Amino acid sequence: MTANEQAAVTVLGLGPMGRAIAAAFVKSGNHTTVWNRTSGKDTELVGLGAVPAADPAAATVGADLVITVLSDHASVHAVLDPIAERLRGKALIDLTSTTPEESRELGEWAAARDIAFLDGGIMAVPPMIGGPGASILYSGTGEVFDRFRPDLEKLGSADYFGADTGTAALYDFALLAGMYSMFAGFFHGTAMVRTAGVTAASFARRAAAYITAMAELLPAYAAVIDSGDYADEIQPARFHKPAFDAIVRASRDAGVALDVIGPVKNLIDRQIADGRAGEGLERITEELAGNRR
Amino acid sequence: MTANEQAAVTVLGLGPMGRAIAAAFVKSGNHTTVWNRTSGKDTELVGLGAVPAADPAAATVGADLVITVLSDHASVHAVLDPIAERLRGKALIDLTSTTPEESRELGEWAAARDIAFLDGGIMAVPPMIGGPGASILYSGTGEVFDRFRPDLEKLGSADYFGADTGTAALYDFALLAGMYSMFAGFFHGTAMVRTAGVTAASFARRAAAYITAMAELLPAYAAVIDSGDYADEIQPARFHKPAFDAIVRASRDAGVALDVIGPVKNLIDRQIADGRAGEGLERITEELAGNRR
Ligand SMILES: NC(=O)c1ccc[n+]([C@@H]2O[C@H](COP(=O)([O-])OP(=O)(O)OC[C@H]3O[C@@H](n4cnc5c(N)ncnc54)[C@H](OP(=O)(O)O)[C@@H]3O)[C@@H](O)[C@H]2O)c1
Ligand SMILES: NC(=O)c1ccc[n+]([C@@H]2O[C@H](COP(=O)([O-])OP(=O)(O)OC[C@H]3O[C@@H](n4cnc5c(N)ncnc54)[C@H](OP(=O)(O)O)[C@@H]3O)[C@@H](O)[C@H]2O)c1
Repeated sequence: MTANEQAAVTVLGLGPMGRAIAAAFVKSGNHTTVWNRTSGKDTELVGLGAVPAADPAAATVGADLVITVLSDHASVHAVLDPIAERLRGKALIDLTSTTPEESRELGEWAAARDIAFLDGGIMAVPPMIGGPGASILYSGTGEVFDRFRPDLEKLGSADYFGADTGTAALYDFALLAGMYSMFAGFFHGTAMVRTAGVTAASFARRAAAYITAMAELLPAYAAVIDSGDYADEIQPARFHKPAFDAIVRASRDAGVALDVIGPVKNLIDRQIADGRAGEGLERITEELAGNRR
Repeated sequence: MTANEQAAVTVLGLGPMGRAIAAAFVKSGNHTTVWNRTSGKDTELVGLGAVPAADPAAATVGADLVITVLSDHASVHAVLDPIAERLRGKALIDLTSTTPEESRELGEWAAARDIAFLDGGIMAVPPMIGGPGASILYSGTGEVFDRFRPDLEKLGSADYFGADTGTAALYDFALLAGMYSMFAGFFHGTAMVRTAGVTAASFARRAAAYITAMAELLPAYAAVIDSGDYADEIQPARFHKPAFDAIVRASRDAGVALDVIGPVKNLIDRQIADGRAGEGLERITEELAGNRR
């Protein structure tokens, strides 16, 4: 591979995500080799121009970049351990969802075998791959990111978060935690308004607009968190407390369980009990991080 | 007040929100009378042209519309009970945050005294009042909403949710539940990424964009909830389960407490234990509503 050439890519694992990734490379003109444990999943890709391989070892022949898109950390080792020698000197990117600790373990495994390794976290569903909405977060060996960046950008926007292999996964799960909490709050709100005959569709329109408007406040919260000074004269915890109490009472009155909102109210109550009624909601971050004093 | 005249408005309660509301009316040219329990809060408003009143009874003289913006349900009764006779035949709107049950109680109190009543829930902070981002939700006597709509739209967008007085408050708290859950998820995510040296500011930029993109999925979730058919072949609970497990493991590894995300994971686990691994995440709505079977 010279400077202006496109990388020869191998994709190991052809579930919906692996197929979407391989398809994006084939369509972009990359030489793309594909393999999957169970046969038959490569038919469409081969039709597009991908080269099928009989096993992982054969799949790595001639590859500049090997990408794993498997179920989990264990399946990555199951596929890669037997072919570690073949990967020596090549670049490997694992796009399988793994925890930061697992990503770090794989990074060390790769480093010990002279494999240039990058971990990736995919912030997209398969149909989004290759489109403007897809985003993939990377961390690990910076040279791999720099060298293959033009290829990686064929999958979606590509961001590099530094040499600690675990950071991309950490970032990935941090975003998912935010997303799932938001969804859970929406389901809670829907359960509330349904008791007054409001449809979920009616609530969703307004909730989507409201959540979007409120998400604009996150950078301001972040500035406070980064400053470490949580004093808040406009909307401290004591300002939010009556709202939480009312949400909890209104939920109880409507027969909606407190699984989602009760724990958030408890965090505010604890902050106030800790003598921090005059500090902002953002201080929940410290509470969750274990910095109560 | 004839068809083309602006309503003569009285605002009882001049905390930051009452002052913002009174100011919006004065600036729009409405004859605006103001009163607050503790004196001195009307200085700026009087400078703008508002008429100060010595007590709530005096404040209602000549008013077409009386608006209460007090601390809570108890303070609304403390102010209105002594002047109920004066309100007979007039229109009353309570913009104080109260629970749906409290709003319904006040609606019955008003109906028994021949006072045309509307309850309102303010989805804005005081500086937003009168601007394009402010939204106020109303429910109760439809005639009051229709008659004063042009005046109410001076405060922000005005939506009417029907004759059940409690619906606006229910809707209000349902939206707040969604907002606070989203914030809590952001604080959780921030606590996670900080352990890898990522700043809250860096995370917030990406989280705001991601939350905004994911909020676009709410109408699709709502359609499933309204249909009552939760079968999901693309991303059922069993698809989300590994992500939740990984978020929980990654949070534990990073030393971040599970107060926010643990209960959401438990809801998914319970759904799967109930034999609904093939149904979508939206089914959490039923779980929270107590419809497990
Ligand atoms: N789909 C999404 O929306 C999405 C979004 C973000 C991230 N991701 C991540 O992307 C990865 C792949 O997702 P997917 O939806 O394509 O998953 P999937 O449908 O579960 O596919 C998993 C792939 O791993 C293979 N596999 C599992 N265990 C194996 C083993 N021991 N040896 C060899 N191959 C093995 C499977 O092969 P067989 O065909 O032989 O079973 C299959 O090709 C996952 O880590 C997922 O978390 C997915
Ligand atoms: N501020 C916001 O961002 C916001 C957003 C949405 C909704 N709201 C709702 O709007 C309402 C007012 O908010 P705010 O921020 O203006 O509140 P606030 O600063 O707490 O003001 C409360 C007002 O109620 C008066 N009051 C309390 N108890 C009273 C009593 N027993 N008798 C007579 N007056 C009494 C206070 O008078 P004194 O001056 O004499 O104490 C004060 O004028 C609240 O229900 C709040 O939940 C506020």
